[in-house]
Amino acid sequence: MAASGGGPLAGVVMGSLSDLPVMEQAGQTLSGLGIAHETRVLSAHRTPEATLAYAREAEGRGLRVIIAGAGMAAHLAGFIASSTLLPVIGVPLTGSPLAGADALLSTLQMPTGVPVATVALNGAKNAAWLAARILALSDPPLAVRLREAREEMARAVAEADASIP
Amino acid sequence: MAASGGGPLAGVVMGSLSDLPVMEQAGQTLSGLGIAHETRVLSAHRTPEATLAYAREAEGRGLRVIIAGAGMAAHLAGFIASSTLLPVIGVPLTGSPLAGADALLSTLQMPTGVPVATVALNGAKNAAWLAARILALSDPPLAVRLREAREEMARAVAEADASIP
Amino acid sequence: MAASGGGPLAGVVMGSLSDLPVMEQAGQTLSGLGIAHETRVLSAHRTPEATLAYAREAEGRGLRVIIAGAGMAAHLAGFIASSTLLPVIGVPLTGSPLAGADALLSTLQMPTGVPVATVALNGAKNAAWLAARILALSDPPLAVRLREAREEMARAVAEADASIP
Amino acid sequence: MAASGGGPLAGVVMGSLSDLPVMEQAGQTLSGLGIAHETRVLSAHRTPEATLAYAREAEGRGLRVIIAGAGMAAHLAGFIASSTLLPVIGVPLTGSPLAGADALLSTLQMPTGVPVATVALNGAKNAAWLAARILALSDPPLAVRLREAREEMARAVAEADASIP
Amino acid sequence: MAASGGGPLAGVVMGSLSDLPVMEQAGQTLSGLGIAHETRVLSAHRTPEATLAYAREAEGRGLRVIIAGAGMAAHLAGFIASSTLLPVIGVPLTGSPLAGADALLSTLQMPTGVPVATVALNGAKNAAWLAARILALSDPPLAVRLREAREEMARAVAEADASIP
Amino acid sequence: MAASGGGPLAGVVMGSLSDLPVMEQAGQTLSGLGIAHETRVLSAHRTPEATLAYAREAEGRGLRVIIAGAGMAAHLAGFIASSTLLPVIGVPLTGSPLAGADALLSTLQMPTGVPVATVALNGAKNAAWLAARILALSDPPLAVRLREAREEMARAVAEADASIP
Amino acid sequence: MAASGGGPLAGVVMGSLSDLPVMEQAGQTLSGLGIAHETRVLSAHRTPEATLAYAREAEGRGLRVIIAGAGMAAHLAGFIASSTLLPVIGVPLTGSPLAGADALLSTLQMPTGVPVATVALNGAKNAAWLAARILALSDPPLAVRLREAREEMARAVAEADASIP
Amino acid sequence: MAASGGGPLAGVVMGSLSDLPVMEQAGQTLSGLGIAHETRVLSAHRTPEATLAYAREAEGRGLRVIIAGAGMAAHLAGFIASSTLLPVIGVPLTGSPLAGADALLSTLQMPTGVPVATVALNGAKNAAWLAARILALSDPPLAVRLREAREEMARAVAEADASIP
Repeated sequence: MAASGGGPLAGVVMGSLSDLPVMEQAGQTLSGLGIAHETRVLSAHRTPEATLAYAREAEGRGLRVIIAGAGMAAHLAGFIASSTLLPVIGVPLTGSPLAGADALLSTLQMPTGVPVATVALNGAKNAAWLAARILALSDPPLAVRLREAREEMARAVAEADASIP
Repeated sequence: MAASGGGPLAGVVMGSLSDLPVMEQAGQTLSGLGIAHETRVLSAHRTPEATLAYAREAEGRGLRVIIAGAGMAAHLAGFIASSTLLPVIGVPLTGSPLAGADALLSTLQMPTGVPVATVALNGAKNAAWLAARILALSDPPLAVRLREAREEMARAVAEADASIP
Repeated sequence: MAASGGGPLAGVVMGSLSDLPVMEQAGQTLSGLGIAHETRVLSAHRTPEATLAYAREAEGRGLRVIIAGAGMAAHLAGFIASSTLLPVIGVPLTGSPLAGADALLSTLQMPTGVPVATVALNGAKNAAWLAARILALSDPPLAVRLREAREEMARAVAEADASIP
Repeated sequence: MAASGGGPLAGVVMGSLSDLPVMEQAGQTLSGLGIAHETRVLSAHRTPEATLAYAREAEGRGLRVIIAGAGMAAHLAGFIASSTLLPVIGVPLTGSPLAGADALLSTLQMPTGVPVATVALNGAKNAAWLAARILALSDPPLAVRLREAREEMARAVAEADASIP
Repeated sequence: MAASGGGPLAGVVMGSLSDLPVMEQAGQTLSGLGIAHETRVLSAHRTPEATLAYAREAEGRGLRVIIAGAGMAAHLAGFIASSTLLPVIGVPLTGSPLAGADALLSTLQMPTGVPVATVALNGAKNAAWLAARILALSDPPLAVRLREAREEMARAVAEADASIP
Repeated sequence: MAASGGGPLAGVVMGSLSDLPVMEQAGQTLSGLGIAHETRVLSAHRTPEATLAYAREAEGRGLRVIIAGAGMAAHLAGFIASSTLLPVIGVPLTGSPLAGADALLSTLQMPTGVPVATVALNGAKNAAWLAARILALSDPPLAVRLREAREEMARAVAEADASIP
Repeated sequence: MAASGGGPLAGVVMGSLSDLPVMEQAGQTLSGLGIAHETRVLSAHRTPEATLAYAREAEGRGLRVIIAGAGMAAHLAGFIASSTLLPVIGVPLTGSPLAGADALLSTLQMPTGVPVATVALNGAKNAAWLAARILALSDPPLAVRLREAREEMARAVAEADASIP
Repeated sequence: MAASGGGPLAGVVMGSLSDLPVMEQAGQTLSGLGIAHETRVLSAHRTPEATLAYAREAEGRGLRVIIAGAGMAAHLAGFIASSTLLPVIGVPLTGSPLAGADALLSTLQMPTGVPVATVALNGAKNAAWLAARILALSDPPLAVRLREAREEMARAVAEADASIP
């Protein structure tokens, strides 16, 4: 039941090109796990129609999860979540004088019925790890890769532990 | 150049009927100043299409200013501001465990080009006063009423001052 | 590929029986959507072994998503996420003098590789809606029910809108 | 009904010359939209009489909107709003150790009857965009320019989107 | 060198009659210490001229210290401090949804040259104790009363200590 | 009744030599106003006896006001205020990861009967201006110098205003 | 090496009798664990000498740990820690408008060399549990009781878990 | 009753090698006081089993106190405290965009029965000083060294005081 034909399973969306240095970490993590994905710049406030169209068409295009990162009054993830039924993962971004507290609350505090799966500030990598957990539910080979990646992380900690004199 | 024909000049919009106890204060203040207005329940997250349609058609329907109140991840004012060029006044509402800090930042911290004129938490009355200042720019009789209202407020403070033994 | 045999697909876990009034809203929402689930009281700090065992055995027992709610230094969701590869949804709970800011940050700010899909403070209902979106990816009838539920929510807003004189 | 004779329609006021690097962005945005404006340094606390005089005389001098930016205990916008009936837009400025949280709350949380249309921290550009929306209500050519500027912003996002490989 | 002729030495000013329950504690404390004072309701935003006149005339009328309490965007103490050279003591008041954080920062974070001696949230009593310390510098009998009051407070703590079984 | 004989009237105290770059601004401002003062390093936590002795002896040594600056859990001003009846001015200092919020609250939120006149974060200059206002109550020549300094500040703002093209 | 002769091993100190409802929970927890203790009301700001004497004499009187609870600018724990070398446990108390954030930071953010072992807001019970852990290091029977208490807590969670239908 | 045989008495644990620059200050302080200790990298989230094993075996291996430092959703100290009865000292670390507020609350706000003795943000040195106070209860020579170190700190402040002209 996993994706077939190579179309993207995950969408990585950001509100501005200036968000790319953080958000491309999501793409890199997805690539490392072998998850086909696409990257888009869509603004809830400057290109609302294009964003709405993207959200509405996502499921039909074969996407199964959308990762959306934005800063300040970060409406992007919630806006997309209101127009699709796919799981939407929100990445609040720093960059404002408030160290991202604005983006965090704007992404997280969604009303009942329109959930956004929020990860840590600038947590683009974890957004990808969360997407992978969701996709792995119906993609056993991905589940294996996830398990190996987790073991690799544990090994890295153990090596750090061993490196202390 | 003021509104004619009795159509509403101001729209008072809220995300949920539970916001009415605060937001109807905006309507009452507008009424007190003789400003024709309409009240709507529109949700950025639950009825995005209806909200978008409202925003796009507002100017054509004769509205000149929109007051939008919402709580939590309060996207309503910003969402409307992204699809109209009318001035949009945002009222962040309390009601969440965070005492409205989420609504405040979600309403205020808008990106460049899509401004929301934000007032204080639960500041529905001040939203109306701000709308009145904007409308009074081209409505001299309203400007007179505004001036009288301000003098009345000053008199009330003076009376309070005089009432202290 | 959806669950079969009637075993629970979702686990609703809380750190203390005092969390039940909020967390049972997750169970009720899941029930309303026809999603089989189980409810457990497991404490990251008072019964770490039982919690660890639950996390490790969840996937094998047929669970596909875990919802974990806790207050204060809310480690429960992250603790579970560290010992399963299922998607884990965290519900930060109020109840401390800090209005849940402690639970929010303790749940959300997870390190890379161990994501927690965090929802709003006391957002047990949205945790269930998010779980449903995840499960619906491989359960078409659930996807239909989700769509109907969303339309019902939109209708409720429209009725509220129509109810305003 | 737009301004005539070339006098300034908008006043850009700041509390200190050190605020100029941010506040001149308001002036530049106004200039880009063809809106005549003036720039002043007036301190609510160090030159209260001059500030009061400015506020009182603004309307008579043909101004239609005032943008006021200040940091720390930012009283400037509220002080001006208390002595004019023109719409006053407040720009809270960072610069204090508290990252502008002091200026934000001092500008936004005004009492009933004396509203300040507050924009984001350091949001001088958006203050200008908001002023333009207000002025455009009675200046159709400006409304056209605003519409074009908004389309240009949307085009820039679309180009950024297209630039991603 | 203390005041003579019975005129008030301290002014207790508040922005609204609704502040009286807290601010009258300042008056009661001053009375308990035998300090002549007056109480006024003056609003920085609704009666700026009256407030300005009060500040300018205070020193000439024999006042030696002014206590000013206000809530929300609490400009009152700073506004008075900008138009007198008397020491001004600011009392930030709760009452807004933000628990007084707005009033605290609006009162405390004054720019260089215009200081406000800020006390704790709702700290009207301490404002009076601080005024008493200032006045006692040139009023030896008051200094004696202050010393006695402090000893009385210490005795009360000692009695509380002794009362524990 | 002003100080005579050249002894210091004001004490400038800090908790650590690392606070000197900020706190020496208090001394410089006092010097600029011709106020004799002394500077001390005294730690509430590392040298409590010396601090206590300083507080107890201050009045007898002719001091009339004490300025105390400290960071983090800034107990210094409160500690001194508990052992003297002189007015104590507290300067919360930044330097901790919390941008001084810890020092601000530790200095400001004093219990009834032991007030600390708190100024802004790093507000050493304003502490000196406040001390000067207090001392000027019984030092007419200082009052004249204060008035001149205030006029000079107003002139500087007016010049800044005039410098804008 | 545990205490002998029945003298108190732990001191429970609070700044005001109004803190007793929370702080007596520490005493009750200590009693439940069979730890001899004493309870005192001592104010860092109102009875500094008595507090200082208590801190200096504590070790000689056989105390081995001190629990200190206070609200607002909570200096009590740090003040005691500066005059003893015993471990001092700080309990920040709510009660101020800031929900205890002031007490939390005033207790926790101590400078190097004078540590306060801080527990959660109103965490008087946990202060006692922490004191018990410290005392159990040299009191094997107490260690056994601690272990039993922990098992009892785990049992209570398991029972709660079992109680859910 | 102090440690014998040279085995470590204190464990210094951190969640990541990137925490070493702060956490090694704990080790250096312990070394300066002659306290045998060990340093480990153990992650509550990436190596939960190894962390659990460390916590369970600590007491048997002769450790008497554990210092645990972590950032973000800092569960490390609480996780260890849930599986040992030794006193656990938590060091919240900065490093996240929230300046450590997340780590502070995640470390401090532990539920009843599982206390963490929390010190200031990045307070690794004070964690060591607190550990030393605990160990000195049963190690008289260490108590002497602690006393000398405290006197040395006081001397340093006195020298700083004397160095001011």
